[in-house]
Amino acid sequence: MDIDLAKLDRAFNPKCVVVVGDKQEGDFRWLRAQRTFKGKLYSVQVSPKSIEGIKKLGIENYTSIMDIPEPIDLVICAVPRSVSLQILDECIRKKVGVAHFFTSGFSETDTAEGKKLEKLLKEKCLQAGFPLIGPNCMGIFNPKVGIRQTVEQYTGTSGQIGFISQSGTHAIFCSLEAHLQGMDISKSVSFGNGIVLDAADYLEYLGRDADTKVIGMYLEGVRDGRRFLKTLRKVAREKPVVIWKGGRTEAGGRAIASHTGSLAVPQAIWNSAIRQCGAINVNDMDEMIDTLKALLYFPVIKSDRVAVAGGSGGQSVAIADDFGEAGLKIPLLTGESYQELAKFFSLIGGSYRNPVDTGNQNRLEIKRIMEILAGDANIDNLVLMISTHFITMGFSTDEDINSNVSMMADVRDRYGKPVMAIVSYSTPRGMERARDVTRKFQARGIPAFPSIKRGAFALKQALDYHRLKNA
Amino acid sequence: MDIDLAKLDRAFNPKCVVVVGDKQEGDFRWLRAQRTFKGKLYSVQVSPKSIEGIKKLGIENYTSIMDIPEPIDLVICAVPRSVSLQILDECIRKKVGVAHFFTSGFSETDTAEGKKLEKLLKEKCLQAGFPLIGPNCMGIFNPKVGIRQTVEQYTGTSGQIGFISQSGTHAIFCSLEAHLQGMDISKSVSFGNGIVLDAADYLEYLGRDADTKVIGMYLEGVRDGRRFLKTLRKVAREKPVVIWKGGRTEAGGRAIASHTGSLAVPQAIWNSAIRQCGAINVNDMDEMIDTLKALLYFPVIKSDRVAVAGGSGGQSVAIADDFGEAGLKIPLLTGESYQELAKFFSLIGGSYRNPVDTGNQNRLEIKRIMEILAGDANIDNLVLMISTHFITMGFSTDEDINSNVSMMADVRDRYGKPVMAIVSYSTPRGMERARDVTRKFQARGIPAFPSIKRGAFALKQALDYHRLKNA
Repeated sequence: MDIDLAKLDRAFNPKCVVVVGDKQEGDFRWLRAQRTFKGKLYSVQVSPKSIEGIKKLGIENYTSIMDIPEPIDLVICAVPRSVSLQILDECIRKKVGVAHFFTSGFSETDTAEGKKLEKLLKEKCLQAGFPLIGPNCMGIFNPKVGIRQTVEQYTGTSGQIGFISQSGTHAIFCSLEAHLQGMDISKSVSFGNGIVLDAADYLEYLGRDADTKVIGMYLEGVRDGRRFLKTLRKVAREKPVVIWKGGRTEAGGRAIASHTGSLAVPQAIWNSAIRQCGAINVNDMDEMIDTLKALLYFPVIKSDRVAVAGGSGGQSVAIADDFGEAGLKIPLLTGESYQELAKFFSLIGGSYRNPVDTGNQNRLEIKRIMEILAGDANIDNLVLMISTHFITMGFSTDEDINSNVSMMADVRDRYGKPVMAIVSYSTPRGMERARDVTRKFQARGIPAFPSIKRGAFALKQALDYHRLKNA
Repeated sequence: MDIDLAKLDRAFNPKCVVVVGDKQEGDFRWLRAQRTFKGKLYSVQVSPKSIEGIKKLGIENYTSIMDIPEPIDLVICAVPRSVSLQILDECIRKKVGVAHFFTSGFSETDTAEGKKLEKLLKEKCLQAGFPLIGPNCMGIFNPKVGIRQTVEQYTGTSGQIGFISQSGTHAIFCSLEAHLQGMDISKSVSFGNGIVLDAADYLEYLGRDADTKVIGMYLEGVRDGRRFLKTLRKVAREKPVVIWKGGRTEAGGRAIASHTGSLAVPQAIWNSAIRQCGAINVNDMDEMIDTLKALLYFPVIKSDRVAVAGGSGGQSVAIADDFGEAGLKIPLLTGESYQELAKFFSLIGGSYRNPVDTGNQNRLEIKRIMEILAGDANIDNLVLMISTHFITMGFSTDEDINSNVSMMADVRDRYGKPVMAIVSYSTPRGMERARDVTRKFQARGIPAFPSIKRGAFALKQALDYHRLKNA
């Protein structure tokens, strides 16, 4: 339907939220998830057993939406499908801003009853001009206002990534994975079957959202392909849009039909249409996260020539292979650079042809090395390797890391060349440490990636994106 | 040289170890790493400053190898290259079993001096029939006896993975990564330039080692290709051998020359030679770990037909896509299976065409579901999805996990079909939890992989390996 952006904005930034039908059996997952919400939260539930539990949570309960004593911006509806039409009626009568239906059991079940119910739900919404999120979905996550899809999500911070997803799991995992990778969500929505509000509506909304700098989408299908591509073309001119399409294989196509009732689209046609709109295709969550990060933090990447320093000998071989196989170049340096390096670089346990292997005491000269690389006419992008293996062993203190971060930011600013870091880990302790180090780099606008391969992939994605955009 | 396996066995299972030249400036990294060694540890050092620190560590120091009051099985040598020949002489005179030279600065520096020194070192060893590990390497890791390459490695446990590596970093990371993935090293060696003992010698040794069930190798080159391939063919008949070759690209070839002085080999020729010997090629550490795990835990994989249960709707789409793109099949089930499932499976919030999406209360029926899948004539392999996201939220208790592990082992034993698990995570806490869950599965002989994509890759590797072996 024609989107009413003001209403959608009420849902993403509500003052009053009502959860309908949350249950004791489900441990009140929806009410508990909204406990971080800063506005007014009500419950609607008729089961005496559940009402008791809701009171224990300290949340005001009513037995009908109609009784809620103030205007409602967002209803989160978790009732059985048999009463979904009745709840929708009440939402419409109460002039609710937007309803999110977690309720499932519609066309995705491929049953006559489910399809009929979905048709009635949709017709009722269209007649009343009522914006519905879902059904069969996890709804909205806005960390700034504390509206969440699950209790494991963080709040209080506002990021720059907008995420639009037909899968609740992928929406949740994207928020957790992005957080782990030092980035946060601005606004995210899981919209399941998307029978009223569809991908294009959310894309239009996040396209205009000032907090959202890049947009990721997990899609299984779109109902109105023409409108979607038109919106995508428009939004992709303003900010980067990265799309992961589920259902690329035959079995995947079957799985999307059972999941959200979507129809399979030939992958080659899809990919080419997306690219023509100026958006970017990816194939899984890691690719999604790394591409979002690259487009959020890199300046315009113009060239494939890369210099890398900071790894050991074995890592330097892997860097050369992985960057090469990603379609990037690790060129030889100029004669002048080699002369400069030869003045102080110890070849015993190190090498500097590019990658510059600093597995030994040469690591202490990393600033001098990085400046020579930055000044080299054969080099356009700079990579610093950091292993949390060495950090957790105490070889790299907080102070070392801080000075590495400042050094890379300084090199970038003075030489005008894009810089990045690779921060690897192999233990849970290393993973925690890597998260902190990654945040430090990214706070200075330097993307940091969790492996050589993922870093190479991300830089190549940025290069391809900027080449396409400026073609 | 012709390997003396008994001498090499002395080095891997020493009773007496001497560290020569460990320094205060390096925080006594070699002595500290051997503090877990159960036999007798001595130091040889002449610098008064360092001797003081060594005494503080409680380690007996001598100023010459000749003074050590007992037979020496392994010397770990960290002296500057300028005294390396002298130390070698003493090792020979003292009838040391094997010497590991951490010392670097030889042919890998591409200098006349380094090359000349390496030639002298090699000649001296060959004349005396003295087995040298290295130079320019991290030597031996044997967790059972407590000999280590770095203090971050574990001891006290003995695993089943033998690892032979030209890179010290990769040897160390492999041990940490394998541990994180619920597996342990039996014996590992980093051998750097490999001027005396080469890949073929270690392969021969680990081929006969009873503790080692699978062998991984990181190689940059081999000196005697004919002998290496002959040994590989022989060992690969006895146990699986997985090989990661560094230097696949032009820049990678340059990096291996600077790292271990190896010469680049055209990748296609290498890959085909390895495959003809019955070994397996991989391209990075993740692929190495996942392939080792697959070959360690899977029985013979005969078919590409897979059923998956336990994921949410979005995960099921990713499973279908990732398994399909890995070259596996997620077929439809038989009519009888669908009839059985229809008796209890709720389609509201779930689906069972394959993958079986149990994102809802159907998860409680996972045993019944898995048995139907196991009995299905269209299905030969079974996958269970577990998200530590849900575990850390308290949705899956220890008890749930234990019963899932028993259920999968039981299904495997009764139906004679290979089973595996995918245990995903997105937080450091989840990573720790995933490690524990992975260990539980693997203790029952069920491989568990950290992502859908890695699980699909591993199963396909096992299928390809067994097909090639039984062709």
